[in-house]
Amino acid sequence: MGRQKVYLEKLARFFQIRNLLLRQALAECLGTLILVMFGCGAVAQLVLSGGSHGMFLTVNFAFGFAATLGILVCGQVSGGHLNPAVTFALCLLGRERWRKFPMYFLFQTIGAFFGAAVIFGMYYDALWDHPGCFNVTGPKATAGIFATYPGRHLTLVNGFFDQIIGTAALIVCILAIVDPYNNPIPQGLEAFTVGFVVLVIGLSMGFNSGYAVNPARDLGPRLFTAMAGWGVEVFTVRNGWFLVPVFAPFLGTIIGVMVYQLMVGFHVEGEVRDQKEGTEQENVRLTNVHSNNDSKEANKEMH
Amino acid sequence: MGRQKVYLEKLARFFQIRNLLLRQALAECLGTLILVMFGCGAVAQLVLSGGSHGMFLTVNFAFGFAATLGILVCGQVSGGHLNPAVTFALCLLGRERWRKFPMYFLFQTIGAFFGAAVIFGMYYDALWDHPGCFNVTGPKATAGIFATYPGRHLTLVNGFFDQIIGTAALIVCILAIVDPYNNPIPQGLEAFTVGFVVLVIGLSMGFNSGYAVNPARDLGPRLFTAMAGWGVEVFTVRNGWFLVPVFAPFLGTIIGVMVYQLMVGFHVEGEVRDQKEGTEQENVRLTNVHSNNDSKEANKEMH
Amino acid sequence: MGRQKVYLEKLARFFQIRNLLLRQALAECLGTLILVMFGCGAVAQLVLSGGSHGMFLTVNFAFGFAATLGILVCGQVSGGHLNPAVTFALCLLGRERWRKFPMYFLFQTIGAFFGAAVIFGMYYDALWDHPGCFNVTGPKATAGIFATYPGRHLTLVNGFFDQIIGTAALIVCILAIVDPYNNPIPQGLEAFTVGFVVLVIGLSMGFNSGYAVNPARDLGPRLFTAMAGWGVEVFTVRNGWFLVPVFAPFLGTIIGVMVYQLMVGFHVEGEVRDQKEGTEQENVRLTNVHSNNDSKEANKEMH
Amino acid sequence: MGRQKVYLEKLARFFQIRNLLLRQALAECLGTLILVMFGCGAVAQLVLSGGSHGMFLTVNFAFGFAATLGILVCGQVSGGHLNPAVTFALCLLGRERWRKFPMYFLFQTIGAFFGAAVIFGMYYDALWDHPGCFNVTGPKATAGIFATYPGRHLTLVNGFFDQIIGTAALIVCILAIVDPYNNPIPQGLEAFTVGFVVLVIGLSMGFNSGYAVNPARDLGPRLFTAMAGWGVEVFTVRNGWFLVPVFAPFLGTIIGVMVYQLMVGFHVEGEVRDQKEGTEQENVRLTNVHSNNDSKEANKEMH
Repeated sequence: MGRQKVYLEKLARFFQIRNLLLRQALAECLGTLILVMFGCGAVAQLVLSGGSHGMFLTVNFAFGFAATLGILVCGQVSGGHLNPAVTFALCLLGRERWRKFPMYFLFQTIGAFFGAAVIFGMYYDALWDHPGCFNVTGPKATAGIFATYPGRHLTLVNGFFDQIIGTAALIVCILAIVDPYNNPIPQGLEAFTVGFVVLVIGLSMGFNSGYAVNPARDLGPRLFTAMAGWGVEVFTVRNGWFLVPVFAPFLGTIIGVMVYQLMVGFHVEGEVRDQKEGTEQENVRLTNVHSNNDSKEANKEMH
Repeated sequence: MGRQKVYLEKLARFFQIRNLLLRQALAECLGTLILVMFGCGAVAQLVLSGGSHGMFLTVNFAFGFAATLGILVCGQVSGGHLNPAVTFALCLLGRERWRKFPMYFLFQTIGAFFGAAVIFGMYYDALWDHPGCFNVTGPKATAGIFATYPGRHLTLVNGFFDQIIGTAALIVCILAIVDPYNNPIPQGLEAFTVGFVVLVIGLSMGFNSGYAVNPARDLGPRLFTAMAGWGVEVFTVRNGWFLVPVFAPFLGTIIGVMVYQLMVGFHVEGEVRDQKEGTEQENVRLTNVHSNNDSKEANKEMH
Repeated sequence: MGRQKVYLEKLARFFQIRNLLLRQALAECLGTLILVMFGCGAVAQLVLSGGSHGMFLTVNFAFGFAATLGILVCGQVSGGHLNPAVTFALCLLGRERWRKFPMYFLFQTIGAFFGAAVIFGMYYDALWDHPGCFNVTGPKATAGIFATYPGRHLTLVNGFFDQIIGTAALIVCILAIVDPYNNPIPQGLEAFTVGFVVLVIGLSMGFNSGYAVNPARDLGPRLFTAMAGWGVEVFTVRNGWFLVPVFAPFLGTIIGVMVYQLMVGFHVEGEVRDQKEGTEQENVRLTNVHSNNDSKEANKEMH
Repeated sequence: MGRQKVYLEKLARFFQIRNLLLRQALAECLGTLILVMFGCGAVAQLVLSGGSHGMFLTVNFAFGFAATLGILVCGQVSGGHLNPAVTFALCLLGRERWRKFPMYFLFQTIGAFFGAAVIFGMYYDALWDHPGCFNVTGPKATAGIFATYPGRHLTLVNGFFDQIIGTAALIVCILAIVDPYNNPIPQGLEAFTVGFVVLVIGLSMGFNSGYAVNPARDLGPRLFTAMAGWGVEVFTVRNGWFLVPVFAPFLGTIIGVMVYQLMVGFHVEGEVRDQKEGTEQENVRLTNVHSNNDSKEANKEMH
């Protein structure tokens, strides 16, 4: 085993990428690939089995836990956004640098693209066996396995509103989960909680158009379907619906950030700041009192 | 990014609310909004999709995890009650001040009102597309999306009893979870556990009238439906059913508090008190023994 | 609020029970009441709604999470067995005193009795509204809401084997969870894990006769149904089936304890004992070496 | 109780196995038995009840939580692989010794064999009562309860690809969970997370051939069915399909290891190594600076 270890370490050194941003983008790519692979895989299982091996609830579970697993895989490296809207929210709040945004968006979309490709390969036989293979519209359409399409009852305006609400709800919950001043989750369980958020959004906001609430998750697979045989119809159908899940989530992000900050975030943050300022003033006084003593002793007592 | 940080801090200082009670009430409002938005959203998805995108189980999951998320969003600020019955229970036990009760009740109801409004907007097209849009009764009624209505088999007396039992069960479990003398849950998992309580109540006590067990969750959306087009019938139907989920939960709370305290709470609390009193007496003796030594040394040994 | 606190403390002192065993038995009673109330409630919801508000999966979820909640409510006081078979297993292994066994068995059965009574009251109208109200056998039977009855395909021998296997599986998993030498679960999550065990047993061993695997959970509600209107048929049906879920679980417990101890338990325990004996010998040597130094210093270094 | 303790300790000493590898193999055997018992039990419940007591989702839940429980039972002793593909991945990465691999594979297969046997005994009556008892093919076939068989739409090539993808996905997620340099999960929750991975794989990759992704889980029960009455057809059906879930997972493992290491693992590991090397150099400098002081003091300050 000694030789194996040496060889493995050589490999590790050879392939190690030292550029932090590239490393993070690669991790986001893998995380989003996992999200889309498991999520769209569940839709494929539901559609292609004709309901015998899935139902809408299983799709919700799959997307929820897929988000959890995607975050677990890449979270320590890149933060585990998996969603340009989340990156956008954190940039808005000054918690991530803006230059990360385009890089993450690009690699998240690439990851989503390849996630769809994996599922396409996995269910290739089942797809050809399905009556509506490569249909974009109609009752047996299969394009909905990969990207989202609006229900027949949905107008473009309501669809836009749907995506805004869904993303705002997602962002409010995620901000509460990762707020450094309002940290309710034990270390390491953030991924699970975000998974539950995605699950709940699917349970209650999935009927209109399939809750994309994620530009990369929708755009990547849509590009893939356009190339894999469904054609440009995936972009032109329903008056360019594909633009809605690309742009509405960012608007929803802004609203979500505002709602959370105005109703909870600013006050929690402010309280912490007030306390810190108070403590600093007290510290000044304390230092004066103790100035004659050994500073190490003072430090001990504070523990 | 420097300028963004400065600007954000200015915003934060401008919008910061320093009144603690108002801040807490706002947080409760947002938490209850999230509870009702996700919960009623799942009912809407079930009813409006005619069962293709939901079932009773998905409603149970949605209300359960919505409670979890609502508590996570506001728990650090306001305690995350989301339910006047919970506030009432904690006041009864002297763990919250009574003046919080009306304030919380009001803002929880407001939050539930707006949660229903968000779902109304989100599923506006689907609602108009649905055969029974704006019906309060009948097989295609949609009023049940927002507020609860009794099943056809249910008399008012049994319905009252149903709400009492449901709330008592909720309160017994929540008291066990938050009892400071009987703390079985790791720090930070209370929200998840309460979510499971709500889920289980839905799984086993949801058939009679839809397990409101929460005056605010029922009253807020009912007010909204009365204003949004369903009319005053939402109040008059079934001989004023709407009063049951407003008043019965408080009676259930009293019973739940009594059951928990008599069977577990008082004894655990008493044991802790007995031990403390014992320790204090021992401390007195210890202090006498060590009175000649440096008190810091004694303190160290006790660690 | 000062006066309320005084009054509450007076109440607490008045009702405090100082006998430890009685206190534990009361807690077990409440825990089992919660288990049966939520569990049988879910069966009632499934049966009485004719499938619209439940399915077998919801019953499994309800029993699983009901076990979790029951354990959370009473676990700190009584250990949260909720099941005479679990008490029996712990007595067999010498972790609980044998005199606890009859006391726990009695109060667990009483708790299960009252849990069934609560559900009976809650669904009283629905029960009378149901075609097969108070039938013990037949397609519309309702006795199965409270106690378990074997499927038509099941012989008594296979049913006995079914209960043995189910209980053995339960006990193996619970022993692994609570084994002091093999502690895989973070403090405080045991209740959730036991809930998952109960859930999985329901998912995979529930078809034969409804997975009682718990004498108290079956006997208490069966007694209640005999008194509440179903009559003695609940005991006489299928050649005295009711004896199977009372006696088979104890046999299953013995097998489960043996399997776990022989395949994992004894070796883990032995390893710890070997290490301890090794450490003690090392300590002896260490003490000799350090005998000239201050013992406090030695203690520090070991930290 | 004194005598019981003495007797129990004698028993423990008598049965204690001191050979570490054998002990680990036995634990793996019990863990895999639990995995297969609960997992295949859920399939049996679904098939034999004709859908009244299960659906594909319940099978997914059962396999997921069965994996969790299997890992909990044996994880502290053997690592809780339950799957030769996982053992293979850890050997590839030099985290387990290669000689463990055949031993684990053997005992995992034996455990799976007996897991299937338990379910066979448990549902013996139900199996004989089922129209298609002991059929390997056809709409009422029961062989699929124990081992996996491909769907009618699946070619051998796609099936091979299906098992590769499924195992690669499993391995990527498991590597992220157990990576010592990228540890996102709180201590003790790994088992639950792996359970969610298995659940998600079932939700999204189960339609083609039932997601074995585990040579032992498929081979053991298949051997059992061959012996228990289904005959050699279980091996010959579909041109020797049984070879696919035995060999494809190992290929999938190699791909999964490569994907994870290239996209996340090597970089995280490298970063830690870089930091350590950096720290070591710094330590050298620090030691020079502090060389005149007491080394214990320096050590304290570093804490």
